[in-house]
Amino acid sequence: MTHPTDAGLRARKRAATQSTIERAALSLALEHGYDGVTVDAICEASMVSQRTFFNYFGSKEGVILGPPPPMPTDAAVEAFVHAAGHDVLGDLVSLLAAAIADGEPDRDLFRSRRVLIQRTPELMNREVARMTELQTGLVAIVLARLRASGRADSSGLTEEARMIVVLAGSVMRYCLEQYFSGTTTGNPREVLENALALVRRITNGS
Amino acid sequence: MTHPTDAGLRARKRAATQSTIERAALSLALEHGYDGVTVDAICEASMVSQRTFFNYFGSKEGVILGPPPPMPTDAAVEAFVHAAGHDVLGDLVSLLAAAIADGEPDRDLFRSRRVLIQRTPELMNREVARMTELQTGLVAIVLARLRASGRADSSGLTEEARMIVVLAGSVMRYCLEQYFSGTTTGNPREVLENALALVRRITNGS
Repeated sequence: MTHPTDAGLRARKRAATQSTIERAALSLALEHGYDGVTVDAICEASMVSQRTFFNYFGSKEGVILGPPPPMPTDAAVEAFVHAAGHDVLGDLVSLLAAAIADGEPDRDLFRSRRVLIQRTPELMNREVARMTELQTGLVAIVLARLRASGRADSSGLTEEARMIVVLAGSVMRYCLEQYFSGTTTGNPREVLENALALVRRITNGS
Repeated sequence: MTHPTDAGLRARKRAATQSTIERAALSLALEHGYDGVTVDAICEASMVSQRTFFNYFGSKEGVILGPPPPMPTDAAVEAFVHAAGHDVLGDLVSLLAAAIADGEPDRDLFRSRRVLIQRTPELMNREVARMTELQTGLVAIVLARLRASGRADSSGLTEEARMIVVLAGSVMRYCLEQYFSGTTTGNPREVLENALALVRRITNGS
């Protein structure tokens, strides 16, 4: 068995290595373009072996795009599906916010990623595919919630679920922009909680 | 005075010329890139004089980006601001939908424009600026509505107005995507009315 302190130390070392590789990869790609960068060059710049690189990121695309957004736990999804109450949009924003609120994403890395994705059609396609997949998953969850609340399937329920996911997605994107544009001094949790309060006001029609 | 039939004929001829120039410009830009196309080449391909071209579009950028989305009339805005009722988001979607529902936008032209905007950073910046300007105008209108309904200015009213505009914007974008991706058989009016009904269901928490 591993001593807790050892485990903590190992996790911190792991995070530091990961961050070093990401920074090296993004800086090289910004300089030479995505296609002009090799895994070899990234490994050399970050002083890790190819084995370590693939262990952490799987591919060149993986290190440039970064990990997908953190998802709610199964228990949180379960609670969302079976919650009472009519503010499904507010509850969905709350579910997504809870999953990501504890992260402290790095603004510089995020901005570099955005620039590269916008410049590189291959990365843009991959990112769009990733977001579409994520949305599909969320539509299924919202549909389960609508059904659990006794709504009949005949009344355009899938369309309604899709619209709820579209709206929640735009709230999350708006929070991202606020956070990363530096127009707010709040940490991610504050930005998300503020947005959720606004959504609840809007859906409750107060 | 012009005879009504003459005026109608002139409007149809004007629309046909406009469409010819747009098609020529987009097709050239798709082939040679935005920077590789001159106004001269567009005029030659569409057999119009430079004078006619500038009269219709003002600039090369203007013909590629196309006109901004149609805006609600002053009377419609006035009615929105002073409407009773708590579903401000639904009412805003309804206001925007009414302004554009009667258009029959050309799917091919729209797709070509999208491809060019995504490929050309200069066009993308201009388009983002145009959308930002439009959003700013809508935030002012929503704010006027919230104030007219007696809401105090102290309670983050501008933030709430901004969030309402973000949500309405995502509904409009979703309708655009549905219409232009060909996933729907409806005309613009049907797509918009369907979306509005979904939004009203979501905000009313039914």
